[in-house]
Amino acid sequence: MDPIGRRRWAIAEGFIPGESHGRGGPAFVSHETACILNVSDRDAHVTITIFFRDRDPAGPYRRVVPARRTLHLRFNDLDDPERIPRDTDYSSLIESDVPIVVQHTRLDTRQAESALLSTTAYAD
Amino acid sequence: MDPIGRRRWAIAEGFIPGESHGRGGPAFVSHETACILNVSDRDAHVTITIFFRDRDPAGPYRRVVPARRTLHLRFNDLDDPERIPRDTDYSSLIESDVPIVVQHTRLDTRQAESALLSTTAYAD
Amino acid sequence: MDPIGRRRWAIAEGFIPGESHGRGGPAFVSHETACILNVSDRDAHVTITIFFRDRDPAGPYRRVVPARRTLHLRFNDLDDPERIPRDTDYSSLIESDVPIVVQHTRLDTRQAESALLSTTAYAD
Amino acid sequence: MDPIGRRRWAIAEGFIPGESHGRGGPAFVSHETACILNVSDRDAHVTITIFFRDRDPAGPYRRVVPARRTLHLRFNDLDDPERIPRDTDYSSLIESDVPIVVQHTRLDTRQAESALLSTTAYAD
Repeated sequence: MDPIGRRRWAIAEGFIPGESHGRGGPAFVSHETACILNVSDRDAHVTITIFFRDRDPAGPYRRVVPARRTLHLRFNDLDDPERIPRDTDYSSLIESDVPIVVQHTRLDTRQAESALLSTTAYAD
Repeated sequence: MDPIGRRRWAIAEGFIPGESHGRGGPAFVSHETACILNVSDRDAHVTITIFFRDRDPAGPYRRVVPARRTLHLRFNDLDDPERIPRDTDYSSLIESDVPIVVQHTRLDTRQAESALLSTTAYAD
Repeated sequence: MDPIGRRRWAIAEGFIPGESHGRGGPAFVSHETACILNVSDRDAHVTITIFFRDRDPAGPYRRVVPARRTLHLRFNDLDDPERIPRDTDYSSLIESDVPIVVQHTRLDTRQAESALLSTTAYAD
Repeated sequence: MDPIGRRRWAIAEGFIPGESHGRGGPAFVSHETACILNVSDRDAHVTITIFFRDRDPAGPYRRVVPARRTLHLRFNDLDDPERIPRDTDYSSLIESDVPIVVQHTRLDTRQAESALLSTTAYAD
């Protein structure tokens, strides 16, 4: 299938709350997600770099999104080379060797009810 | 009227919850929607392909958005050639023979109050 | 100031709920808004057309956004040439004679707590 | 690192509620945020101008986003040359001397539960 998307994306918003009441199991733990779609016929090798306010960037974190597959990547799960700190503002840069589409979503369960936000990420 | 939009769109985020308390009737059943606008003077023949994490894509699903009309398409209603699985991450590719505009929205009623998200989809 | 934006925008999502608990006064009545920014030194003459699923479009609705001003336009307030029907899916096309920037926002108060969504609209 | 982004961004939506129940401390005070990412190797000198419905624009407000850093800027904190009025519709224009990426987010705590919205801002 013809590829769609770009090779370089940015998500300027990022924040993983340190607490979560977690009602209902893992689906309701607070999380930040980068949804990554690769419609092409080639695997996408994706590199993620995390930027902070007052320290050097973290990463690179590496993932493969196989051909004609999607990956809903939770930033909470990134721990190599280091875990992303909680309760800390960050941004992310997502780079790939084939065109991909990236959408950012957050589920927040710090208070009694969940809240959602989502936006198509930025690509040059 | 002069057309506006593109012929090829992607929504990287997708998730239909398997449970819904459904207070207030169908308007409050959890759903994912692709709002599709066709301002042109020609009918738009739209094809939707659904991508998953660990299986081949589903589809094509076909819809017509008539000239100078909008269609708020619920992914929950897609069932030919197959129903979209619940509680499963997916992404969608939406292709049309005339320019259209696509916006993604989710209403989530798993918890006591609804939550909304929306974003203009991605077009090359 | 140098203008920023485009002359032709679309918002594919649109829905004004027919009921609202209205706690807290007008600020909490359910509403759909198109926020329109005109940073240029010329007034923007804006025309809005509303598209539906199963009838001809409504409009044009006309507004002026003065030079170096913003207008947060509530679709609920549009009533000339006709009121936008409640509980009905719609989309909107927003055209201007000078470049503007358009962002779509919804506050939903049908249930006990408000929910918010927002996205930059689509421009060719 | 190669820069990503643009030098001129607009956020048409803006509104800082005048009241907030503030449960849980500063993290739950209502706020509007512009998340600004600078992946380049040069500091970004950022100028923000605020537009209103019925008065001249406010600003410029100035901030530096250092090379390879992010800044989650709360509009609530802008007070030089003047505080942004509460309960008032506004829009913002964000200009930089190096490419940046801007994302808009709002947390609203006027009612019992928080609500979130976010969108990638508009760049020409």
